[in-house]
Amino acid sequence: MPTPISIIQFGLGGVGRALVQQVFATREAQARHGIALRYIAVADSAGAIVGERGLDESIVESAARLKERGGNLHEHEAGYFQQSLAALIDLAGQPQTVVVDTTAAEADSLLPAFDLALSRGYALVLANKKPLTASLETWQRLTGEGRAGYEATVGAGLPVISTLRHLLDTGDEVHRIEGVLSGTLGYLMSELQEGAAFGAAVRDAKARGWTEPDPRDDLSGMDVARKMLILARTLGYTGELEDVSVTPLYPASFAALSLDDFMARLDELDVDLAAQRDEAHGAGQRLRYAATIHPGNPDQPAQLRAGPTSVPTDSPLGALRGPDNLLAFYTSRYAARPLVVQGAGAGVEVTASALLGDILRLAHETR
Amino acid sequence: MPTPISIIQFGLGGVGRALVQQVFATREAQARHGIALRYIAVADSAGAIVGERGLDESIVESAARLKERGGNLHEHEAGYFQQSLAALIDLAGQPQTVVVDTTAAEADSLLPAFDLALSRGYALVLANKKPLTASLETWQRLTGEGRAGYEATVGAGLPVISTLRHLLDTGDEVHRIEGVLSGTLGYLMSELQEGAAFGAAVRDAKARGWTEPDPRDDLSGMDVARKMLILARTLGYTGELEDVSVTPLYPASFAALSLDDFMARLDELDVDLAAQRDEAHGAGQRLRYAATIHPGNPDQPAQLRAGPTSVPTDSPLGALRGPDNLLAFYTSRYAARPLVVQGAGAGVEVTASALLGDILRLAHETR
Repeated sequence: MPTPISIIQFGLGGVGRALVQQVFATREAQARHGIALRYIAVADSAGAIVGERGLDESIVESAARLKERGGNLHEHEAGYFQQSLAALIDLAGQPQTVVVDTTAAEADSLLPAFDLALSRGYALVLANKKPLTASLETWQRLTGEGRAGYEATVGAGLPVISTLRHLLDTGDEVHRIEGVLSGTLGYLMSELQEGAAFGAAVRDAKARGWTEPDPRDDLSGMDVARKMLILARTLGYTGELEDVSVTPLYPASFAALSLDDFMARLDELDVDLAAQRDEAHGAGQRLRYAATIHPGNPDQPAQLRAGPTSVPTDSPLGALRGPDNLLAFYTSRYAARPLVVQGAGAGVEVTASALLGDILRLAHETR
Repeated sequence: MPTPISIIQFGLGGVGRALVQQVFATREAQARHGIALRYIAVADSAGAIVGERGLDESIVESAARLKERGGNLHEHEAGYFQQSLAALIDLAGQPQTVVVDTTAAEADSLLPAFDLALSRGYALVLANKKPLTASLETWQRLTGEGRAGYEATVGAGLPVISTLRHLLDTGDEVHRIEGVLSGTLGYLMSELQEGAAFGAAVRDAKARGWTEPDPRDDLSGMDVARKMLILARTLGYTGELEDVSVTPLYPASFAALSLDDFMARLDELDVDLAAQRDEAHGAGQRLRYAATIHPGNPDQPAQLRAGPTSVPTDSPLGALRGPDNLLAFYTSRYAARPLVVQGAGAGVEVTASALLGDILRLAHETR
């Protein structure tokens, strides 16, 4: 008989709903792993539906439909109740429980629930980068026991964290990670390469829904910085988010503008970025929004750097086009030619698949 | 206390010796996984050293050094004895045992030992493609219970099988896998693209030790076909090795030649391959030794095909250069743009790391 594994899920947005669908659609694969997943709580910011002995699929699915129509859980008829996230943790009557965070909530609102879950021996699976990029002490608390999965936080469904863990577990040494960690910025740099004006490319991408509502949330590079910090901390880096050196794609003075003013003045960025592109092309290179992580060693401190960077045309980063993410791992064993992973690094389906992969792995280990 | 996991290893060649070194060098990572690996038997074709309660590191290392100098285990002073591989399986006094095959031996000589190991509940980890590309019935017997790891058989240390398993476990559907699965053939096609004559490129590669002693073992495409069959069988393919359609890089009449005659007549291949290359370039494409797997569906039978193929210059395969392996997974979720894994697909260190990764994963699951 498969072991029942209980899921307590925070968030029922696009990723959360895709995960619900995948959990219910993969019963066979779960059985192959000797487990059977069931929901005992699904929470959003308004409330939660709970069922200690496992929520019926139809209940979870109707809650997902309600959310998809723009409702929230306290309008849900069945089993609704409102309490703190930490209180939900108490519902699970068994240690074979996984707490899944599909939100983008701030770390402070989640940590009491996470701490309680870990103290009970539950596993933790996150798509949310914020708790993992809070203080080093928080990182160590959440990941220290090896009970946290966070494959979804970097490259969505791409095998990034698992590859890094494999390299470390088998005694390889990571010398450098280079990558493009934002599909949006990858797309914009591709457009720039093809001759587009930067401001027009941003406006166009925003109109298509390919940027955050405020494009500065992409252009600041902060999302890239969070991913870099998670990669580096996996390698043992002991710094903080502010130690990541990030060059935004707009000048500091633009940070204080209203969104409307920022959009209106976007074209002012064209000249500088065209000049950077032309300089790269003049040197036979390509301009990318590149992230570089040097894990450091006894002779050299770690260095995490992201920003517009001129790269060789025939390097993995130089050959990249469009919105793909790419990570190149340069190690003792992959020295001259890196191990490269490439593909879509965003999207609700692939992000949910990374969460499900972590749930299966961690459930397997505690079965 | 970490759980002791016993290893019975067949083969102490380059890959086997690299694995010994990695097993002894990764004690910390093993402890993080809650396990402690120890050798209870190491066998080559001449004999074995055994120690039911765990062989001392120094004994295993001195056996490895003896092999490196060209000796074999029956010359080893300590603990040598000769018996069948199957008899070695009886040594393990606990179910937490992993049998590792680092040989290139024929399936028939190994299967009695493998069957006995599986019947005892041991795990099986293979770098050897032959047992997995024997009959479908053998494949099902070895892999059916999920107790066999074979990441090392395709792309060496690259995350190929684990990625495929992740896609399947999370309910994605694989429509097509395209790849370059031979570093040697990738290198030769790159040289051809740069304008080299094919025969000269083969001779040069052989002189550098980059081909098998008889280059036909690479040029036949049979090694690629075995890897394709393993990928396809992981996807549920029920065919046999002879169902893989492979076009060798030499005409059928060359198969019967002696090695010397074959090498002497190598330049006769130049004209045809140069013509294929020029035709590809003329169409704005590139010539690659490409492997394509269509898993099939109710409307269309599965199709496995490998050979010289003209591919778009800006496709993942077209952009590839040098001896790297590359696998592009086209799936429901990675539809327009595939999930790509690229890097060195051969080498004793990276092959051993794939074996160690499988050992850790399977040990973890039975701990």
